[in-house]
Amino acid sequence: MSTAEIIAVGSELLLGGRTETNSVFLAELLAEQGIQVRWKTVVGDSLDDVGDAVARAAARATIVFVTGGLGPTVDDVTREAVARATQKPLRLCPQAWRVIKTRMKLAGRVVSENQRRQAFLPEGAQRLRNAVGTAPGFFLKWKRAGVFCLPGVSHEARTMFNESVLPILQRARWLGAPAEIRTIHTFGLVEGEIDRRIGGIIPPDDPIRLGLLASALGVSVSLTWFPQKELRKRATSDDVAAKSHASLDDPGKKVDKIVSVLGDYVFATNGRGMEEVVGQSLRAQGLTIALAESCTGGLIGHRLTEVAGSSAYVDRGVVCYSNQSKIELLGVSSSVLKKYGAVSGPVAKAMAQGIRSRSGADVGLSVTGVAGPGGGTRSKPVGLVYVGLSTPRRSVTTAFRFHGDRKTIKLRASQAALNVLRRWLSNLPVEDRPVPRQADGQTGR
Amino acid sequence: MSTAEIIAVGSELLLGGRTETNSVFLAELLAEQGIQVRWKTVVGDSLDDVGDAVARAAARATIVFVTGGLGPTVDDVTREAVARATQKPLRLCPQAWRVIKTRMKLAGRVVSENQRRQAFLPEGAQRLRNAVGTAPGFFLKWKRAGVFCLPGVSHEARTMFNESVLPILQRARWLGAPAEIRTIHTFGLVEGEIDRRIGGIIPPDDPIRLGLLASALGVSVSLTWFPQKELRKRATSDDVAAKSHASLDDPGKKVDKIVSVLGDYVFATNGRGMEEVVGQSLRAQGLTIALAESCTGGLIGHRLTEVAGSSAYVDRGVVCYSNQSKIELLGVSSSVLKKYGAVSGPVAKAMAQGIRSRSGADVGLSVTGVAGPGGGTRSKPVGLVYVGLSTPRRSVTTAFRFHGDRKTIKLRASQAALNVLRRWLSNLPVEDRPVPRQADGQTGR
Repeated sequence: MSTAEIIAVGSELLLGGRTETNSVFLAELLAEQGIQVRWKTVVGDSLDDVGDAVARAAARATIVFVTGGLGPTVDDVTREAVARATQKPLRLCPQAWRVIKTRMKLAGRVVSENQRRQAFLPEGAQRLRNAVGTAPGFFLKWKRAGVFCLPGVSHEARTMFNESVLPILQRARWLGAPAEIRTIHTFGLVEGEIDRRIGGIIPPDDPIRLGLLASALGVSVSLTWFPQKELRKRATSDDVAAKSHASLDDPGKKVDKIVSVLGDYVFATNGRGMEEVVGQSLRAQGLTIALAESCTGGLIGHRLTEVAGSSAYVDRGVVCYSNQSKIELLGVSSSVLKKYGAVSGPVAKAMAQGIRSRSGADVGLSVTGVAGPGGGTRSKPVGLVYVGLSTPRRSVTTAFRFHGDRKTIKLRASQAALNVLRRWLSNLPVEDRPVPRQADGQTGR
Repeated sequence: MSTAEIIAVGSELLLGGRTETNSVFLAELLAEQGIQVRWKTVVGDSLDDVGDAVARAAARATIVFVTGGLGPTVDDVTREAVARATQKPLRLCPQAWRVIKTRMKLAGRVVSENQRRQAFLPEGAQRLRNAVGTAPGFFLKWKRAGVFCLPGVSHEARTMFNESVLPILQRARWLGAPAEIRTIHTFGLVEGEIDRRIGGIIPPDDPIRLGLLASALGVSVSLTWFPQKELRKRATSDDVAAKSHASLDDPGKKVDKIVSVLGDYVFATNGRGMEEVVGQSLRAQGLTIALAESCTGGLIGHRLTEVAGSSAYVDRGVVCYSNQSKIELLGVSSSVLKKYGAVSGPVAKAMAQGIRSRSGADVGLSVTGVAGPGGGTRSKPVGLVYVGLSTPRRSVTTAFRFHGDRKTIKLRASQAALNVLRRWLSNLPVEDRPVPRQADGQTGR
């Protein structure tokens, strides 16, 4: 299999506070093409550091990607660093220069001497057209490696990869069997519990790489593997042995097994969000929904309306922070508010019922809780959240106790509310427990 | 100045889809201590690759940080890779082993042979206590470098850095003058225009590193510099020359100059969000706000309520996707809806007025627009958004035309609405233009 190294150039990437994202999507695009990234390196805008990194990469990888450092300023050193490392002079590429001048003219701007720097490429390099920006990329062969230099601006690099890099990789026969990637999204189980449940399904030496990623939205289990040539070869030479081997090792079966042991905690696979899952379900069942949000402040409405076409099932929402607005907009009785307090099961239920009956929507969903950092008491601590669901048949409330800062508690509360809705839409039991519970999917692992 | 290299270990970091975040906060913590990260490397869980990376790093950096690969499974190779590279045998650290056993016992779990692997450290290495997880870190000196191995789990690495790494860096006198970082957040100017306005303030050879970061929330300008020892030295030897030099070169003055040329497009500095800025202003002026959101779907309410204490000024919000809900919840007249359409200036104004009068809040803010991808027409294309602001004195509407996908348009619309509110709160002119304009702050640079 071809191995690749990605070198990201930019002093700002070394200062902290900024994540380097080009190598992330490049690695993903490469995995889809069966090319495994084995090294990533980040260096600053220094001629020496970029040159060293490229020389080392070309000595160990089949394919080298350099992103960044192709702009017009003197800080942009990639062209010169590669030219020096490969001992080729920089030459003006007339075609690249023409494109830059045209582009600047169309934008009504004067072409500066700096802009001209971008048109210089190491001798013998192939220009890679930049369809969405001024700086061209370039490709050259050095030692036994192919070196691609792409702009640092993500959408320029992405466009150039698809338009110009892929055909070169194809011609050079550097492509392999694409990696298989499965992601399983769960809500309601902590990381350690997931670890325990799926323990042993993927042995340590398995080609499937298992990753658990905990966030406020739950724990995602990712499984990645490169199809193994050895297995496929064996299948042609010795069918019987291969079949028995395949039945034991079939990655798809292992994925199924994991999904099955995680049960109805799995809310989606392959990157779909909870809002898409419930949206699709509402649409399929021809139901409309109305929201009454207190501590989530509009987040559930925001998430549901992130999905294209959500106007078909999202009827309306109200954000009622004050008691007065709960009374006016939802018809929650002031005696219930007084008796149980705004953060309580009975108020969550009254909010869900109120928004449902006032809107005429099929389902009413409500949230009330203490997002913090202030406002917590001993009996109603920060993180206590009640979710109310009102449907034509019944109204239920579920209590949760979340941990984290204000943003995290809001996010978890929105996910918990949508998960209650998901379970009801899927005819799963909607938990109806009066006692707050730990359900935040994050552990100290 | 001490230079550092960060090596992140983990095959999952090379597969794409995942950003590597440990090096980001480590670089930030190190910058605060005056240590500049010069290289970052990511390698998979391979003995050879980790060993090679550590050897190379120790040869070129003063301080090396390795994160990840310290867990209990056979995939966790950092201990062995470092031991092999430094040619030291692995020895059981009885103290580390005791801590692991106690921790597992407290968690009610059985200690496995795998767990024991975590207690082995290269001979001569100093154990770094893990206050929040099982795997200890370790520190050793090799060649002329200090090598720190930290867990891959972020909050464990962060805690270990503060508790155990900092004291070692201090004792070894590896700390320097902390980096200065300023961030200026703007909305309403495209990247190219910002580039043009601030052009020349920071010359190419300036120690200040300038970065522009465009997002749906606007363009942020970041300025980072390490205080220069040379300048300070010169000040003692030749005061007059130093002063004239300092007046030209004072980074603080350059930051002020940039803020001044960007004018009232600057909405915040140093990481504050628009929701914090308007929240603080509402609170200071003792005003309450009510929201009427159509295409933003609750996002503005969500953002305002991300700020702690926002219940003091956020009265309520309604999300009114359907015409019917605009009539029922806001009192928008059906004739205005029929005459101008739901996405129009008059409807935005009626929505803002409606939510203000019905809620009794001081300010009403509304948004109506076409978020897409469907629903656009020639006269009302996807991305057309109207913001309405109703105040005790007057009601205004502003039209915007945004580009991007549904999520981006929602985010830009929420930012534009909050910016209209910010400008009114700061007594700046709130633009009141009937013609849609380009205001999305993103260019193809």
